[in-house]
Amino acid sequence: MDDRQLLETIRDLIGRDETSDDCAAFPFDNGRKVLVSTTDMLHKKTDFPRRMTPWQMGWMSAAASLSDIASCGAQPTQVLVAVGLDRPERLRPIMEGAVACTRACGAVVAGGDIDSHTELTIVTTAFGIVEKEYYCTRSGAKAGDLVCVTGRPGSAQAALDGCSGYWENLVMPKPQVFTGQRIARAGASAMMDVSDGLAVSLYDMGEASDVGFVLRESLPLLPIADAKKYFLYGGGDYGLLFTIPREKFVRMDVPVSVIGEVVEEPGVFLGEEPVEKLGYAHVWN
Amino acid sequence: MDDRQLLETIRDLIGRDETSDDCAAFPFDNGRKVLVSTTDMLHKKTDFPRRMTPWQMGWMSAAASLSDIASCGAQPTQVLVAVGLDRPERLRPIMEGAVACTRACGAVVAGGDIDSHTELTIVTTAFGIVEKEYYCTRSGAKAGDLVCVTGRPGSAQAALDGCSGYWENLVMPKPQVFTGQRIARAGASAMMDVSDGLAVSLYDMGEASDVGFVLRESLPLLPIADAKKYFLYGGGDYGLLFTIPREKFVRMDVPVSVIGEVVEEPGVFLGEEPVEKLGYAHVWN
Repeated sequence: MDDRQLLETIRDLIGRDETSDDCAAFPFDNGRKVLVSTTDMLHKKTDFPRRMTPWQMGWMSAAASLSDIASCGAQPTQVLVAVGLDRPERLRPIMEGAVACTRACGAVVAGGDIDSHTELTIVTTAFGIVEKEYYCTRSGAKAGDLVCVTGRPGSAQAALDGCSGYWENLVMPKPQVFTGQRIARAGASAMMDVSDGLAVSLYDMGEASDVGFVLRESLPLLPIADAKKYFLYGGGDYGLLFTIPREKFVRMDVPVSVIGEVVEEPGVFLGEEPVEKLGYAHVWN
Repeated sequence: MDDRQLLETIRDLIGRDETSDDCAAFPFDNGRKVLVSTTDMLHKKTDFPRRMTPWQMGWMSAAASLSDIASCGAQPTQVLVAVGLDRPERLRPIMEGAVACTRACGAVVAGGDIDSHTELTIVTTAFGIVEKEYYCTRSGAKAGDLVCVTGRPGSAQAALDGCSGYWENLVMPKPQVFTGQRIARAGASAMMDVSDGLAVSLYDMGEASDVGFVLRESLPLLPIADAKKYFLYGGGDYGLLFTIPREKFVRMDVPVSVIGEVVEEPGVFLGEEPVEKLGYAHVWN
């Protein structure tokens, strides 16, 4: 059983929107604004590669939540950090990394919790604010919209598999908060980050929006072996996947790649060829 | 080294208020309201007694954060739940317990994260809203104020040590959210919950408010052996400790016990006798 299947078992308890979007939403200011929030648990065994420093672990943990805020088109305001510490001397560098990433995104670390734990575990919660009209979710993609992505999907996975030159993409991912806001203001119809991998993110967005995707044969691949596999299935990147009506794309002035088009039929295709629904997932045996 | 000492090592990074209050604060609605938020990490080895059911673990985890929101005088709005799951079949009852506690407090579980973990770990984050004029923190207690507490401190610790009749206090703690709001509106000068134990909470509040406390000899003790020890040093209860100017106390209509008075000199005394600064703490060796 993986985490997506497990999530199905509690959808009726929490709600469909609540279990499919990256962030929880709370309208305020008479419905003119939305407070978005998200929480992410990372821990040593499955999330922090060897050779990663505690500072980088703190940075990556904050980045995981800040990236979800970015994918709503929101400006992050605050981050809370709960640390289950195996070794007390790690707290300071972990928090320095978390604070550095949070500040780089224009927010502040506003508190947290400290716990002793056999396995280093970091749980970050981030909040952000976005005007209702610019608030993006995974639903809203419409047939005919362009499909776009920021950054170079596959970079983090490439680093994890030993390709040189991509280590920083893996251990110091940059949440695309300012880019996310510009994409949202340009008129994106749906947005999410690709931290679980591009292919599974497309499937998730397709399900939430009730659409499918056809990708172009010419993709912005990395100059490495098996580049297409890394592009489609590699996890750990914090680029943004979004859809946008064709006529609104011209107003964009951020670095993005158009990788395909939204279609009515469900599924994800690369030209004629079906793309597998594979990506990062926690698995319980 | 315990968690209070450890917290000292990062105060300069995060800020003094941010590391001493139960909740982070974010002013909104042109400063008329405050969004409060808090995060708590609980895990099997140190937080969930044997014989506790997964449903109760979910309840207790949500309660830990909701109690912090209550201590600000705020109305909880949303809870996020990150679960590091050892066994997938536990997710549903854990979430049912978390949802039940959250609903009982007038809020909703709005999302979360699922992770696989060798040790069951639950991290809850709660948000709440309070009008600025009623927002309570640990600072604000003034010499001459009454010191009060809700509930029966020591009950949870008594259950943990095998006293019968208190099991529910331990495994299904009730966050005092509605009581907290009434206390705040009555004009409390400082408030916090006593989940780490009354004595250490008094020391924390005294430090934040730059005051001391003298407790009365007649305390609302449990009818058990070593009752005073449990009252002062037992952790795991979710009652509220607050201070309030004497003339405002008459307006209260919630069940509380007056246990002493705020004084100028730092420290905590039971009559003439000093109370030790002991309570619940995580310790790293």
